[in-house]
Amino acid sequence: MNTTDTPVTVIGLGLMGQALAGAFLKAGHPTTVWNRTTSKADAVVAGGARLAPTVGDALEAGSLTIICVTDYQAVRELFGASDVGLDGTTLVNLTSGDSAQARETARWAEQRGARYLDGAIMAVPPAIGTAEAVILHSGSEADFEAHKSTLGALGTVTYLGADHGLASLYDVAGLAMMWSVLNAWLQGTALLGTAGVDAATYAPFAQRIAAGVAEWLPGYARQIDSGSFPAEVSALETDARAMAHLIEESEAVGVNAELPKLIKAMADRSIAAGHGGEQYPVLIEEFGKPSGD
Amino acid sequence: MNTTDTPVTVIGLGLMGQALAGAFLKAGHPTTVWNRTTSKADAVVAGGARLAPTVGDALEAGSLTIICVTDYQAVRELFGASDVGLDGTTLVNLTSGDSAQARETARWAEQRGARYLDGAIMAVPPAIGTAEAVILHSGSEADFEAHKSTLGALGTVTYLGADHGLASLYDVAGLAMMWSVLNAWLQGTALLGTAGVDAATYAPFAQRIAAGVAEWLPGYARQIDSGSFPAEVSALETDARAMAHLIEESEAVGVNAELPKLIKAMADRSIAAGHGGEQYPVLIEEFGKPSGD
Ligand SMILES: NC(=O)c1ccc[n+]([C@@H]2O[C@H](COP(=O)([O-])OP(=O)(O)OC[C@H]3O[C@@H](n4cnc5c(N)ncnc54)[C@H](OP(=O)(O)O)[C@@H]3O)[C@@H](O)[C@H]2O)c1
Ligand SMILES: NC(=O)c1ccc[n+]([C@@H]2O[C@H](COP(=O)([O-])OP(=O)(O)OC[C@H]3O[C@@H](n4cnc5c(N)ncnc54)[C@H](OP(=O)(O)O)[C@@H]3O)[C@@H](O)[C@H]2O)c1
Repeated sequence: MNTTDTPVTVIGLGLMGQALAGAFLKAGHPTTVWNRTTSKADAVVAGGARLAPTVGDALEAGSLTIICVTDYQAVRELFGASDVGLDGTTLVNLTSGDSAQARETARWAEQRGARYLDGAIMAVPPAIGTAEAVILHSGSEADFEAHKSTLGALGTVTYLGADHGLASLYDVAGLAMMWSVLNAWLQGTALLGTAGVDAATYAPFAQRIAAGVAEWLPGYARQIDSGSFPAEVSALETDARAMAHLIEESEAVGVNAELPKLIKAMADRSIAAGHGGEQYPVLIEEFGKPSGD
Repeated sequence: MNTTDTPVTVIGLGLMGQALAGAFLKAGHPTTVWNRTTSKADAVVAGGARLAPTVGDALEAGSLTIICVTDYQAVRELFGASDVGLDGTTLVNLTSGDSAQARETARWAEQRGARYLDGAIMAVPPAIGTAEAVILHSGSEADFEAHKSTLGALGTVTYLGADHGLASLYDVAGLAMMWSVLNAWLQGTALLGTAGVDAATYAPFAQRIAAGVAEWLPGYARQIDSGSFPAEVSALETDARAMAHLIEESEAVGVNAELPKLIKAMADRSIAAGHGGEQYPVLIEEFGKPSGD
């Protein structure tokens, strides 16, 4: 089967929805679109998309419907009022939200007879349609496999597991990593800047450290999964002493010390709980419980 | 010249000093040692080191002296009281400290006629003597080049620049990156753990994101060095909306939200300063100024 013949529907034509519809059109899929504000369909219609007059009509057009609107509140408003039939439809909801919303929407859609995959887009609109755009999916593996090649027009599509909440969880976890690498790099760039070192000179050093530390993660994960944290490489107490240097240095040269202080506060709490002689991943016990407990 | 003939002195035989002396011995260097508590020399003396009776005697033995004690206060106490001659000696101080202490100690040593390199060890004692042990140096490039091959017995030796403060600054900047990658990974592991995903399953995903984001740093550095932050990929405001998701998700599933909140607080401050339409590295303005300003 030439999968580019598979018809698809895209509901929501904001910046991201237009990019999604554009990628399907480029891959040759007959593409139906719908957007609350009709004028936002102009560009994709000019590119060959068919504009459906109603959400219900848009759904009937395709066996596969991508939803990409502002938030889950908007998803509910889309379908909630009308009596849109979802029987036999496969919905792939790429709207950003949290894991609870994803699970709730999955239940709601499945009760109405739809197949439902929840997704998260780890990319900006211009990257859609390239391998760089990572799109996460969770829900039934069979439903994912049935549409994997069609969804592949959007980027690098990944299946995470049956729990519909996984796409949201991986998404925010990945973003936390992204911002953390950037913030640590900015902290270092600010520190080195006080000695006249420019950002371009420091960046390759930060890059090597980040990539090097990333390689430890699978090994460290084994400590977490086994619940045992022997100080094979170094003890948390040793880390904490160096964290004090980071704070002192930041304050001495006049750069922001909030990130260094948070790093040390988490470690100090774990040391206070008796884990100073164990290895860094023992901090999972602090990260795993609500703040302030 | 067979550089393994070069005599070296190691002052300070704590965990790290013993590893340093051991690596020099293993590489064949005639090695003199001194430690305040004499008994800590036993192992390296058994390995072939000569124990000097005084600091002054230890210094005379070698053209190159490595110092590795607790802190700069200890360095001062080592030399301060006695009238140790430093004329013609090259001191490589691998004691952890801050950039101001390094610069001050350099001035002090140079006034006494010594050549002085400041260093920082980015490794644990068992890694010393292997390529994995990264050791940073700053000070005169000629002095570094003169001893580079001898210092190479300790690990991967790197020269950073003439400012003696650079080794300390790169050291804490690199550590900030290390802890940040680990903390972001722990945040994600805690989030995914609430959905029953084990640490080993999540780790490769976190590893790919960290290494992928690290690759952006040289490009982002160009924005900082040019002082111009056009939103080529995405605007800070878009990041801030996703940061709110990270906080909400962390709180909803009952994991610690302090790191997510700090991430958002830094971005919010930059947005309040009028940078919401610019790209992430514009945050350098927040990282570059003292906390609370
Ligand atoms: N842009 C990115 O870089 C990016 C990256 C990753 C993920 N995402 C996610 O993708 C989703 C869409 O983002 P976007 O950038 O396309 O946002 P956007 O440009 O603001 O577009 C929002 C879309 O949602 C629709 N909408 C909002 N409320 C609605 C309602 N009550 N009923 C029907 N439609 C409604 C809008 O319709 P109208 O045109 O009628 O207002 C519009 O089509 C968001 O969840 C976002 O987090 C975006
Ligand atoms: N261990 C690591 O993983 C590691 C990693 C990177 C960097 N470093 C740095 O390496 C340095 C040494 O660390 P370490 O692990 O070897 O520490 P350590 O095992 O606690 O040893 C401290 C050393 O400093 C000496 N010392 C302390 N105060 C002194 C004084 N007033 N006068 C003379 N000697 C004094 C001690 O002599 P006594 O034996 O007489 O007490 C001992 O030799 C520190 O700056 C540390 O931050 C360590």
